[in-house]
Amino acid sequence: MARFLNDRKAASGQMPGSLIHLGTKKLEKVRIRLLNYSIDDFVETEPDELDDCMPYIEKDKVSWINIDGLHDAGVIQKLGDLFEIHGLLLEDMLNTDQRPKVTETEKLMIVILKLLEYDEKTDRLSSEQISLILDDSYLITLQEKVGDYFDPIRDRIRKSKGRLRRKGADYLTYALLDTIVDNYLLIIETLGNMIEKTEAQIFTPNQPKGLMQKIYKHKTEINFLRKNVRPVKEILHRLIENESGFIADENMKYFQDLNDLVMQATESIEIYQMMLNDQMNIYHANLDSKANEIMKVLTVFSAFFIPLTFVAGVYGMNFDNLPELHFKYGYLYFWIILIVITLGLLIYFRKRKWF
Amino acid sequence: MARFLNDRKAASGQMPGSLIHLGTKKLEKVRIRLLNYSIDDFVETEPDELDDCMPYIEKDKVSWINIDGLHDAGVIQKLGDLFEIHGLLLEDMLNTDQRPKVTETEKLMIVILKLLEYDEKTDRLSSEQISLILDDSYLITLQEKVGDYFDPIRDRIRKSKGRLRRKGADYLTYALLDTIVDNYLLIIETLGNMIEKTEAQIFTPNQPKGLMQKIYKHKTEINFLRKNVRPVKEILHRLIENESGFIADENMKYFQDLNDLVMQATESIEIYQMMLNDQMNIYHANLDSKANEIMKVLTVFSAFFIPLTFVAGVYGMNFDNLPELHFKYGYLYFWIILIVITLGLLIYFRKRKWF
Amino acid sequence: MARFLNDRKAASGQMPGSLIHLGTKKLEKVRIRLLNYSIDDFVETEPDELDDCMPYIEKDKVSWINIDGLHDAGVIQKLGDLFEIHGLLLEDMLNTDQRPKVTETEKLMIVILKLLEYDEKTDRLSSEQISLILDDSYLITLQEKVGDYFDPIRDRIRKSKGRLRRKGADYLTYALLDTIVDNYLLIIETLGNMIEKTEAQIFTPNQPKGLMQKIYKHKTEINFLRKNVRPVKEILHRLIENESGFIADENMKYFQDLNDLVMQATESIEIYQMMLNDQMNIYHANLDSKANEIMKVLTVFSAFFIPLTFVAGVYGMNFDNLPELHFKYGYLYFWIILIVITLGLLIYFRKRKWF
Amino acid sequence: MARFLNDRKAASGQMPGSLIHLGTKKLEKVRIRLLNYSIDDFVETEPDELDDCMPYIEKDKVSWINIDGLHDAGVIQKLGDLFEIHGLLLEDMLNTDQRPKVTETEKLMIVILKLLEYDEKTDRLSSEQISLILDDSYLITLQEKVGDYFDPIRDRIRKSKGRLRRKGADYLTYALLDTIVDNYLLIIETLGNMIEKTEAQIFTPNQPKGLMQKIYKHKTEINFLRKNVRPVKEILHRLIENESGFIADENMKYFQDLNDLVMQATESIEIYQMMLNDQMNIYHANLDSKANEIMKVLTVFSAFFIPLTFVAGVYGMNFDNLPELHFKYGYLYFWIILIVITLGLLIYFRKRKWF
Amino acid sequence: MARFLNDRKAASGQMPGSLIHLGTKKLEKVRIRLLNYSIDDFVETEPDELDDCMPYIEKDKVSWINIDGLHDAGVIQKLGDLFEIHGLLLEDMLNTDQRPKVTETEKLMIVILKLLEYDEKTDRLSSEQISLILDDSYLITLQEKVGDYFDPIRDRIRKSKGRLRRKGADYLTYALLDTIVDNYLLIIETLGNMIEKTEAQIFTPNQPKGLMQKIYKHKTEINFLRKNVRPVKEILHRLIENESGFIADENMKYFQDLNDLVMQATESIEIYQMMLNDQMNIYHANLDSKANEIMKVLTVFSAFFIPLTFVAGVYGMNFDNLPELHFKYGYLYFWIILIVITLGLLIYFRKRKWF
Ligand SMILES: [Mg+2]
Ligand SMILES: [Mg+2]
Ligand SMILES: [Mg+2]
Ligand SMILES: [Mg+2]
Ligand SMILES: [Mg+2]
Ligand SMILES: [Mg+2]
Ligand SMILES: [Mg+2]
Ligand SMILES: [Mg+2]
Ligand SMILES: [Mg+2]
Ligand SMILES: [Mg+2]
Ligand SMILES: [Mg+2]
Ligand SMILES: [Mg+2]
Ligand SMILES: [Mg+2]
Ligand SMILES: [Mg+2]
Ligand SMILES: [Mg+2]
Ligand SMILES: [Mg+2]
Ligand SMILES: [Mg+2]
Ligand SMILES: [Mg+2]
Ligand SMILES: [Mg+2]
Ligand SMILES: [Mg+2]
Ligand SMILES: [Mg+2]
Ligand SMILES: [Mg+2]
Ligand SMILES: [Mg+2]
Ligand SMILES: [Mg+2]
Ligand SMILES: [Mg+2]
Ligand SMILES: [Mg+2]
Ligand SMILES: [Mg+2]
Ligand SMILES: [Mg+2]
Ligand SMILES: [Mg+2]
Ligand SMILES: [Mg+2]
Ligand SMILES: [Mg+2]
Repeated sequence: MARFLNDRKAASGQMPGSLIHLGTKKLEKVRIRLLNYSIDDFVETEPDELDDCMPYIEKDKVSWINIDGLHDAGVIQKLGDLFEIHGLLLEDMLNTDQRPKVTETEKLMIVILKLLEYDEKTDRLSSEQISLILDDSYLITLQEKVGDYFDPIRDRIRKSKGRLRRKGADYLTYALLDTIVDNYLLIIETLGNMIEKTEAQIFTPNQPKGLMQKIYKHKTEINFLRKNVRPVKEILHRLIENESGFIADENMKYFQDLNDLVMQATESIEIYQMMLNDQMNIYHANLDSKANEIMKVLTVFSAFFIPLTFVAGVYGMNFDNLPELHFKYGYLYFWIILIVITLGLLIYFRKRKWF
Repeated sequence: MARFLNDRKAASGQMPGSLIHLGTKKLEKVRIRLLNYSIDDFVETEPDELDDCMPYIEKDKVSWINIDGLHDAGVIQKLGDLFEIHGLLLEDMLNTDQRPKVTETEKLMIVILKLLEYDEKTDRLSSEQISLILDDSYLITLQEKVGDYFDPIRDRIRKSKGRLRRKGADYLTYALLDTIVDNYLLIIETLGNMIEKTEAQIFTPNQPKGLMQKIYKHKTEINFLRKNVRPVKEILHRLIENESGFIADENMKYFQDLNDLVMQATESIEIYQMMLNDQMNIYHANLDSKANEIMKVLTVFSAFFIPLTFVAGVYGMNFDNLPELHFKYGYLYFWIILIVITLGLLIYFRKRKWF
Repeated sequence: MARFLNDRKAASGQMPGSLIHLGTKKLEKVRIRLLNYSIDDFVETEPDELDDCMPYIEKDKVSWINIDGLHDAGVIQKLGDLFEIHGLLLEDMLNTDQRPKVTETEKLMIVILKLLEYDEKTDRLSSEQISLILDDSYLITLQEKVGDYFDPIRDRIRKSKGRLRRKGADYLTYALLDTIVDNYLLIIETLGNMIEKTEAQIFTPNQPKGLMQKIYKHKTEINFLRKNVRPVKEILHRLIENESGFIADENMKYFQDLNDLVMQATESIEIYQMMLNDQMNIYHANLDSKANEIMKVLTVFSAFFIPLTFVAGVYGMNFDNLPELHFKYGYLYFWIILIVITLGLLIYFRKRKWF
Repeated sequence: MARFLNDRKAASGQMPGSLIHLGTKKLEKVRIRLLNYSIDDFVETEPDELDDCMPYIEKDKVSWINIDGLHDAGVIQKLGDLFEIHGLLLEDMLNTDQRPKVTETEKLMIVILKLLEYDEKTDRLSSEQISLILDDSYLITLQEKVGDYFDPIRDRIRKSKGRLRRKGADYLTYALLDTIVDNYLLIIETLGNMIEKTEAQIFTPNQPKGLMQKIYKHKTEINFLRKNVRPVKEILHRLIENESGFIADENMKYFQDLNDLVMQATESIEIYQMMLNDQMNIYHANLDSKANEIMKVLTVFSAFFIPLTFVAGVYGMNFDNLPELHFKYGYLYFWIILIVITLGLLIYFRKRKWF
Repeated sequence: MARFLNDRKAASGQMPGSLIHLGTKKLEKVRIRLLNYSIDDFVETEPDELDDCMPYIEKDKVSWINIDGLHDAGVIQKLGDLFEIHGLLLEDMLNTDQRPKVTETEKLMIVILKLLEYDEKTDRLSSEQISLILDDSYLITLQEKVGDYFDPIRDRIRKSKGRLRRKGADYLTYALLDTIVDNYLLIIETLGNMIEKTEAQIFTPNQPKGLMQKIYKHKTEINFLRKNVRPVKEILHRLIENESGFIADENMKYFQDLNDLVMQATESIEIYQMMLNDQMNIYHANLDSKANEIMKVLTVFSAFFIPLTFVAGVYGMNFDNLPELHFKYGYLYFWIILIVITLGLLIYFRKRKWF
């Protein structure tokens, strides 16, 4: 399966709006969790069916309906019916390969983006799609599997800590997006640390095996990050324009702050991309440099011995008449010649700075 | 014939609007198929002549006229006359090298784009041009050859399944474009799988022959894809602006969904382009790395034996007076010298980490 | 002379609007050709002087005045006087290095661009500058030399074939531009064929001499093309905006069609640029790959014989006391040792997959 | 710790607006310095608490409150309370990894950017974050540590030299920004000098060890510069638009001058980036060139001696019947053969211009 | 001193608007030259002080005040006082590293740009800053040193040749800018010729020493050109918009013509940048190709002689029992074996196309 595109065979040729889950089934049973709160009240429950959530939705309270698991078309269809979400949008939420985007209809604002996770075992990033459906008094979140990602936010709501209980569903949306984007930055930092580590290794005389493979791997992961983070920049630009008014003006500053973080994330990604390109080039250069060094040794070695061996060969010949062999000091002269040749080569090589 | 441009000699120097089919003749006889439907009625027929289609065109019904085969200038001229299409536009439809585009006249909207096909035998992409002529109550499609590309849509119309029968010609246009774009994504996925496969091969110690050729091939195919898909992005931006009103407002969301897919397609193409560039660089680096390794062995081998062979040569000389030859343990001393040299070199090479 | 800039010494330091012909003199005598036509009438003549053209210019007829040769400042000055063209614009037309552009004054529209020609002998592109001066009832074209470039159009006018006789000077302008742009595409196709031919050669085991030189040559020609074609894109955008109304609304579609062709031309140029860059990289890689292969052979060869030669050297020594020499099967043992060493090396090299 | 991103673990999962200092604690105790002045009056004091500054703030005087040290959340919270700064903005000022930016609220304008410092010991750039909070009659500056950066400005205020005493808090803001940007240019100049120094070294025959490492280091520092300087360009564009009116129109020209400097800074960074890329490529090329030279010597040496050694080996053979050995002038002939071979090779190599 | 930035230490920490000359002092004494003219009148004088120029400035005459030398702060201060130029702008004119720009105040328009000069001795470009201060009836030009750059224009004014005497100060501004830009093109042409000359050398079998250094040098000069020419493009766009009306509408066409030249200059620079990148890559490829060729010879040579030398070594051994030595035709057989091996290797190498 191509990593940068999901398997799309199930979807192609289907009627638009067909609710087909494009992705891996990550959960057995769909799980629904409801948090209903205002400054004074707080209810937490896990209803079996979506219908059970409806009575909670009131004007002056915030209802956060979290749905884990996308594989049950019945639940998704129900969701569409209850909250009047068009089939095309439901389809987008089910297609876990959906490009991150924000859609504003007359009734709802839907944000689709990715939770990213760094798997330390395989050293690979994986993405989970999350959809946020926002109206004045409720926020519905759809995830592929049950996770502890948003537990700190749940805790803050439960313990009535901070602004969350005083503010509306738009602020809750912000809080979730902030958690997601904070996590992007953590992952970039993790990857950045790894990238800066390979940097050090490139300049050691003996590069560890598989270094180039590691650099390429980092490039692939940075590409994966870029693919998932860059569209979030567009999402935030849209949210900040806020033409549809789903976000209260007084809360706009939170989204602007979020925008700063996303800008920082995309710029860091760009810098790491450039650094990885440089690392590749330098790795290249270092290989050449080392080969160069070894060749120099070979040249010097061969060049020293080749003429000496030739001279020895001459005096190993069996000619009847080879006068030098019968000189009294022939063998001594032989060594003198050798030393002269050796010194001559030494001076020549030194001059050329070959060693 | 240059792949990225058709043979244009037939067209140059001709009068503008000359109906010359630029491309390969892919079909013997032009085939006309008509589907005429509303919620309640359905007619399917294969008229011999275009004139036979005219009576079917009514305000409250949708007529889909599909023409397979572009080589018969008479049929195309007839088409222009019956539906008041300007010669220049007819010419565009005949020129199978036409850049994908949308044209809106007062009467009609014409979309020209490419069906892409991946030929598993030659491992090459080929393109077929399709033109869509849209008015309120009819859609005319022009293809180079008869294909089963749109059979699922024909089936859905016949079986009265889904929205197709309830909606107008604009929705039918969407359904066809959706099929085409879905196919783009399938092809990108296929190519992506191949690209990710070569990636694995690059890091094996012995790269299969022709790997570089394969990577280059992938680059060419990705370029071909990009050439054909990128203008579709522009087309969709134009359709979504919808200044001329050929698309009903209530159907605009379908085209927006299509836009998402095209965005995803172009971004995936960009990522694969970057990956292929990296693959090329790494292939390069690996070649260097291997040559380096082999050279190290050569150096070590030569360096070990060159001085030993020299020493043996010395004692193979025939000097009358070569005292060492007559030592009692001369031969033993010889081996001791060899071992000392060998160990010295071993330590030297080890220190430099050459093996 | 720098190819991408004309020799400008003659022009610098001169008064603006000085009529100095910057370029090579390509013709002996200026030649003036006049075609004057309406639906019903047709006159063709070759007047000696520009003044002789003036009586022909009438409201309901189209006059096409074609001037071949730019070296006669008197004729150009006359042209400026008769048709009220500012000296700066005359200067632009004479400077054959003028960047392609369109200028709209209150009275006239002037388009300057290049005719491109591919010289099969030198395998180089050359450019000839053409200027088109358009008013309601006449079109003046200025060329560097006499050519048969526009003969098909002259023929169509003479034979009253097609739209040319029914339409105005704006349509004639279109027809000429269309001929020029069609020729761009033919040249891109020619170059494209050559580029795709070198592609095949890059992957043959023994690249023909001068292949890199050929690729570089193609890059230079593509750059030359790009330099001359890209500004034409800007020209067409300006023409299509048509703020000054020199083009009749009903003829605008012809210019839009032309725009398609220019877009196609610039995109093809971009693709070929990318392909040439890849070809360079691959040529590089192939050289490395071949050197690698040869080095492997050298290593294997040397490595096999170096120890064998050493052993032979040992038993060629003349020690008084070298016991192996006197063994009964000494020579046999020698060969056994050789075979053992050979097999050992064979296995080692096989394992490392060096051959 | 990834250099291009701070350690963010402390911040993630926290409530928005939590005042957590993200960065290294660079100071023991927070230090507050106040300068209060008009044309005629001047007061300088170091209050222990922020409250002590409040009485000084008047309409017709400028108060510059400088706070050194970000680690005391109490002081920062107090700052927020006294001057009505939102928690999110306080958080930005504490996060020393904040992307440079300008924020305009109804009451205040806040500019966050970086002081850059070049450490000559480690040859690395470091950044210190500075925040400027501007209202009509006061400017608050927040720094990570006590520094002498702005001492010249303090001196100019004290000595009533120049415009500072006549103008408002906006001009003071300009003066500080000008100092910061001037310093950017000084650092670029320092780096530029180092970059142009390595350039000279690249072309010496024996490149000093670690040259590639140095070039890479320069690239990293240039990236660091670019990361910190480029957003300042955006800040200045915003300040020059001056929609909120925090800057008096008559002082706008100072900010436009500042803009020139920032433009110059970003363009110089771009040029140095290009130069470093070229240096890398050339370093590569020079390595290849040197290896090439050494190989030529090896080839010539080997090629000379290999056939000579072979001939000597032939006449060292012990065949019973080897006639040449018994020729009267055999040994002389041997040397003649050697000289002929040597001359032959010399001519061959000369022709190929190998030495 | 970093070439792409002046030494800025003198300026940093100074009060804004301090008149410090940043650059090299190129002249001993400031020289003032005044030309005052209308169609009928003409006065030329060299006053000692700027005050002496003031009486000449009248509504219906053009005064061109040319000041050579920037080092005398007194003169510059006087200039500012007499013509009401703000200190910041004076500072820009003194800072010879000022990015080319145009500033329009209520009273004046100031254009700052560079005169470029190509020094044939050092083969380097140098820049001199020129500032043009334009009002309705006067033009002040500031240069670093006295030059003959504008002598042709002075001559044209003196001799009442051409438009200069009929037109206003705006046309004089144009004439000067035209001279400057024409010179840019001449320099690009000179550099272009040098670049196209190295191109030829790259493909010769033996590249002259220092070729890579030359290519790098060209890159640096092209970067220098680009740095100084590109902002002029922005300047001309601003002049053509002409919002402030310092240029008469009837003279606008001259500035549009100038714009053409600047466009041509920047495009040529871009093309030469691409060509230089290609040259670098090809130089690389050629080095590899040559090393490849030499290695092939080494391989073939070694491979031929290594087995032959081994065989000779075998029959030089001193085994008591080495039967072949005593064969009658042993020596003949030896040569037959050698020839067989040689032919075998020849066929093998031929097949692999190694020579
Ligand atoms: Mg994206
Ligand atoms: Mg992406
Ligand atoms: Mg930030
Ligand atoms: Mg960026
Ligand atoms: Mg390499
Ligand atoms: Mg394209
Ligand atoms: Mg393209
Ligand atoms: Mg396109
Ligand atoms: Mg999508
Ligand atoms: Mg992208
Ligand atoms: Mg993208
Ligand atoms: Mg490379
Ligand atoms: Mg390589
Ligand atoms: Mg161009
Ligand atoms: Mg260009
Ligand atoms: Mg252009
Ligand atoms: Mg087209
Ligand atoms: Mg394009
Ligand atoms: Mg190479
Ligand atoms: Mg940045
Ligand atoms: Mg950045
Ligand atoms: Mg930025
Ligand atoms: Mg500046
Ligand atoms: Mg720039
Ligand atoms: Mg290299
Ligand atoms: Mg610049
Ligand atoms: Mg620049
Ligand atoms: Mg610039
Ligand atoms: Mg031009
Ligand atoms: Mg460009
Ligand atoms: Mg190389």
